[in-house]
Amino acid sequence: MTLFDFHVSATDPVTAARAATFVTAHGVVPTPMFMPVGTRASVKGVTVDQLREIGAHVVLANTYHLFLRPGSEIVRDAGGLHRFMGWDRPILTDSGGFQVFSLADTVRLTDDGVGFRSILDGAKHFWTPEDNMRVQEDLGADIIMQLDQCPPYPAEKEFVAVAVERSAAWAARCKAAHTRHDQALFGIVQGGVFEDLRAESVSRLTEIGFPGYGIGGYSVGEPHDLMLESLAPVTELLPANRPRYLMGVGNPTTMLEAIALGVDLFDCVLPTRTARMGTAFSSEGRMNMRNAKYARDFGPLDPSCSCSVCTTYSRAYIRHLVSVKEMLGSTLLSIHNLHVLVDLARRARLAIEAGQYSAFLQVWREGPGADDY
Amino acid sequence: MTLFDFHVSATDPVTAARAATFVTAHGVVPTPMFMPVGTRASVKGVTVDQLREIGAHVVLANTYHLFLRPGSEIVRDAGGLHRFMGWDRPILTDSGGFQVFSLADTVRLTDDGVGFRSILDGAKHFWTPEDNMRVQEDLGADIIMQLDQCPPYPAEKEFVAVAVERSAAWAARCKAAHTRHDQALFGIVQGGVFEDLRAESVSRLTEIGFPGYGIGGYSVGEPHDLMLESLAPVTELLPANRPRYLMGVGNPTTMLEAIALGVDLFDCVLPTRTARMGTAFSSEGRMNMRNAKYARDFGPLDPSCSCSVCTTYSRAYIRHLVSVKEMLGSTLLSIHNLHVLVDLARRARLAIEAGQYSAFLQVWREGPGADDY
Repeated sequence: MTLFDFHVSATDPVTAARAATFVTAHGVVPTPMFMPVGTRASVKGVTVDQLREIGAHVVLANTYHLFLRPGSEIVRDAGGLHRFMGWDRPILTDSGGFQVFSLADTVRLTDDGVGFRSILDGAKHFWTPEDNMRVQEDLGADIIMQLDQCPPYPAEKEFVAVAVERSAAWAARCKAAHTRHDQALFGIVQGGVFEDLRAESVSRLTEIGFPGYGIGGYSVGEPHDLMLESLAPVTELLPANRPRYLMGVGNPTTMLEAIALGVDLFDCVLPTRTARMGTAFSSEGRMNMRNAKYARDFGPLDPSCSCSVCTTYSRAYIRHLVSVKEMLGSTLLSIHNLHVLVDLARRARLAIEAGQYSAFLQVWREGPGADDY
Repeated sequence: MTLFDFHVSATDPVTAARAATFVTAHGVVPTPMFMPVGTRASVKGVTVDQLREIGAHVVLANTYHLFLRPGSEIVRDAGGLHRFMGWDRPILTDSGGFQVFSLADTVRLTDDGVGFRSILDGAKHFWTPEDNMRVQEDLGADIIMQLDQCPPYPAEKEFVAVAVERSAAWAARCKAAHTRHDQALFGIVQGGVFEDLRAESVSRLTEIGFPGYGIGGYSVGEPHDLMLESLAPVTELLPANRPRYLMGVGNPTTMLEAIALGVDLFDCVLPTRTARMGTAFSSEGRMNMRNAKYARDFGPLDPSCSCSVCTTYSRAYIRHLVSVKEMLGSTLLSIHNLHVLVDLARRARLAIEAGQYSAFLQVWREGPGADDY
């Protein structure tokens, strides 16, 4: 097994779905795979033991947040993110570009990089692609992402075209600046909902060549159908022998639809964020656990779920915890919701290996969870 | 093994400390034992799997809170607290009397019982001792406590004398009203810091006869020395063949001093409450994890601790979580702090079994954690 080898072991006969493995320095990742988000080097309320029990293989952490606190030098001096957060399986960091654009007060964008003020203390920072690589090398994740410019939706085509051009130029600079051979640097496809710009972006990135490709700029407000429509040609153009990572997307339905288009990796804050709002995913669709109808419902959250929460606690108990604002409610719902997504990707993989993915997807589309996107 | 058998297996040759076992319907409890508090049927932020890993044998839940939400009927219909909260080891409930007096807006106290308004919706409630037994039978804990009147500190001796008399009368009524033979009903010794009133209370309660005795009315603001001074004659007077439970006390030093006086059971919110404020117990005394001095401290919280937090995470990581207000920080510190208390009681038991408790206590008294009470 060579580092960053992406081996496709099965392809679905009907859809573009594929089952594969990706080799990282901290283990082999079976795909399709859902990656829980641990923004500040912590999946909110969930321990690493619980993440392992959920079946999570890769955890995502956010460079922007960690750069500000505790600072990438501290993480580096701790021996990198794995040692720092006690997670010995693969980790992925984003570049932080998305957060710079969406969270920072004042953003100064030039062809050379991006300047921003800290949301914490107003301190000025400037990241060139080279600076960003240094930060991500300090954090030490197994998969790191290029610095890119992610346009909002809607955006003028001319604006998106500039972002594609700039992101491609930064991709080349990131690759040139990146020195750690134990990290896989992924390029990021941009282009919004414009098919020709997406194609241009793929062409520029594959010319440079990366061990994997992120697909960015989705789930930023565009209609769901439009997203899937414009995603299809992107995955067709991307090389078949490299993993494809649809960034920031992870509701059950969109994940399964994107798997059918040939996407391999997913991440999203949705399972944990909705958990903290008292919402459970289930095979019957989302359940608002604040609802009084669960007060005397002594069955599990989801009878078809095998997670530790569903085998131990009842809906009535979770409803009680959420009602009285016990933090354990957020933790238990987070564990369950993450398990739902991780397990859904695992079952998708089994369906692909069995040559049954289109049937698997059709069952989902006709089920009560289909509206969940 | 007969239910509620309390078997003393070792007594310390110098102090009054003893090692024993207490038989409950959900297992045998080795003592001395520290019991984590799960006020609303949840030890804040800690799952039952984590509680088991900590080595907790008994969890305490609060009748007052559960009576108001979700209501004792719902817990009863769920199959009792064990089923409701997913904990198959012993559970203890207090009577709720302490919370009625300390939390309720308007308390109406008569010889027949206590009237109070809900802190949630202002609804009026009245508990006779018989009502209170019915509520605790619905909750279904293994050890339940009589309804009593806990005077504040300081209080006039005449006031405390009335509380002793009333609590003794209620003890008899609780015993007469209690019907569940799988529950051990404990009487509660009151009397404040007045030795003769404490003796009177013990005399009244032992005349009625209980499978165990709570010692209430401490840790309500009295000086630490005065508490231990007035506690000594109480444990001497209580029958040697029954467990003694010092209610609401559980800082490391007081627990070890009280064990030397012959106390067997302890509970306290301190480990979890201080955890949520960012404080770690350690063999070096308390550590405020917000302190910047831990930012680059990559060692464990306590090098001498064997808990899952100390073997997985660093001070720098915990400091980071606490600084950025990640809920995982509270959970990890709660697990560690609970482990410290549970493990300290376990080690006290080993010292008693070895006939070395006075030496064990002396080492603690001379150590950096001795000021922690």
